[in-house]
Amino acid sequence: MKATTEYLWFNTSKKREFINITSDVKKVVRASGIAEGMVLVSAMHITAGVYINDAESGLIRDIEEWLQKLAPEGPNYNHHRTGEDNGDAHLKNLLIGHQVVVPVTEGELDLGPWQQIYYAEFDGRRRKRLIIKVMGE
Amino acid sequence: MKATTEYLWFNTSKKREFINITSDVKKVVRASGIAEGMVLVSAMHITAGVYINDAESGLIRDIEEWLQKLAPEGPNYNHHRTGEDNGDAHLKNLLIGHQVVVPVTEGELDLGPWQQIYYAEFDGRRRKRLIIKVMGE
Amino acid sequence: MKATTEYLWFNTSKKREFINITSDVKKVVRASGIAEGMVLVSAMHITAGVYINDAESGLIRDIEEWLQKLAPEGPNYNHHRTGEDNGDAHLKNLLIGHQVVVPVTEGELDLGPWQQIYYAEFDGRRRKRLIIKVMGE
Repeated sequence: MKATTEYLWFNTSKKREFINITSDVKKVVRASGIAEGMVLVSAMHITAGVYINDAESGLIRDIEEWLQKLAPEGPNYNHHRTGEDNGDAHLKNLLIGHQVVVPVTEGELDLGPWQQIYYAEFDGRRRKRLIIKVMGE
Repeated sequence: MKATTEYLWFNTSKKREFINITSDVKKVVRASGIAEGMVLVSAMHITAGVYINDAESGLIRDIEEWLQKLAPEGPNYNHHRTGEDNGDAHLKNLLIGHQVVVPVTEGELDLGPWQQIYYAEFDGRRRKRLIIKVMGE
Repeated sequence: MKATTEYLWFNTSKKREFINITSDVKKVVRASGIAEGMVLVSAMHITAGVYINDAESGLIRDIEEWLQKLAPEGPNYNHHRTGEDNGDAHLKNLLIGHQVVVPVTEGELDLGPWQQIYYAEFDGRRRKRLIIKVMGE
């Protein structure tokens, strides 16, 4: 069995941003030399998500508006008594998920034709990190 | 380490359908000869989900109604400017998740007594695919 | 490749409880002797969740209130025709997810500084089980 670990860093200019990281994950998988296995892609923060969906700008706006509706920004979070103001970002993380596991087959990401891997920043403008871990042989 | 990969195809007659695939996943695990490991079960589309819950018809109706409430069908998605009409199906996929990782112990799915694996179609009536990847030894 | 499997049991005094299990998972990873791999942490019930987020009591109240809002308790679930009264607990499980996969690097959980692993009970006051499965070498 082999394992390879890489970290990606982000420092977004906006509070919320959706970044397509599919090609980054592909590069790590190819460099690993692993032909059959799985790759874990996981945000290392509790106010950022990782998900798989379409690389279509209208849909990405829909996803942001939907997350705002179901986990709205606002003052009324108990968490804010600590001095934080990002309660909504924690709930957005829980709603969309913070990790995906992608199959690796014949040395490539085994994704469907429209599946793209996204890093979803919900509380940006500072350095944040993501782990990519490939495991297999 | 061993790895086995199988694909299931679906072509539902209804737009939305919930299909219990537990026995399909069990068959792939048994055929793999893997005693200890994990099996990844992942929809290869961005308008279908995979989840684990109860095989009870009333609950399945509850799940469908709940997904309709939190991610409703309707005309008001930015994504629809591309000519698509399935914005809701993308959000349903994100809400319920598109994959599960199930433990394999002593050659069997290590699930609790009520846990069943479901493929959830949100935009059916066409051929769609799911991957089952077992890894372990 | 090595694999280690442990089960945790819970019997909460309240219907809903959020229990930080990070140190339990760490112990299993260390005892496994696995340096590089992944650990699957998965509820074996369909009315309990596993998620990763902050160990902050205000936020935990926010999470509970948010789950109550998006998947409320109440009489109007089709599932209740079976005699059950926990339809909301099934939906809370689907919303927050029932499992996480955590990377293991150099023999330790490779989590970000604020990431803590939680077992989220939504229908407690009885014995329930969780699986921790480490895989790697």
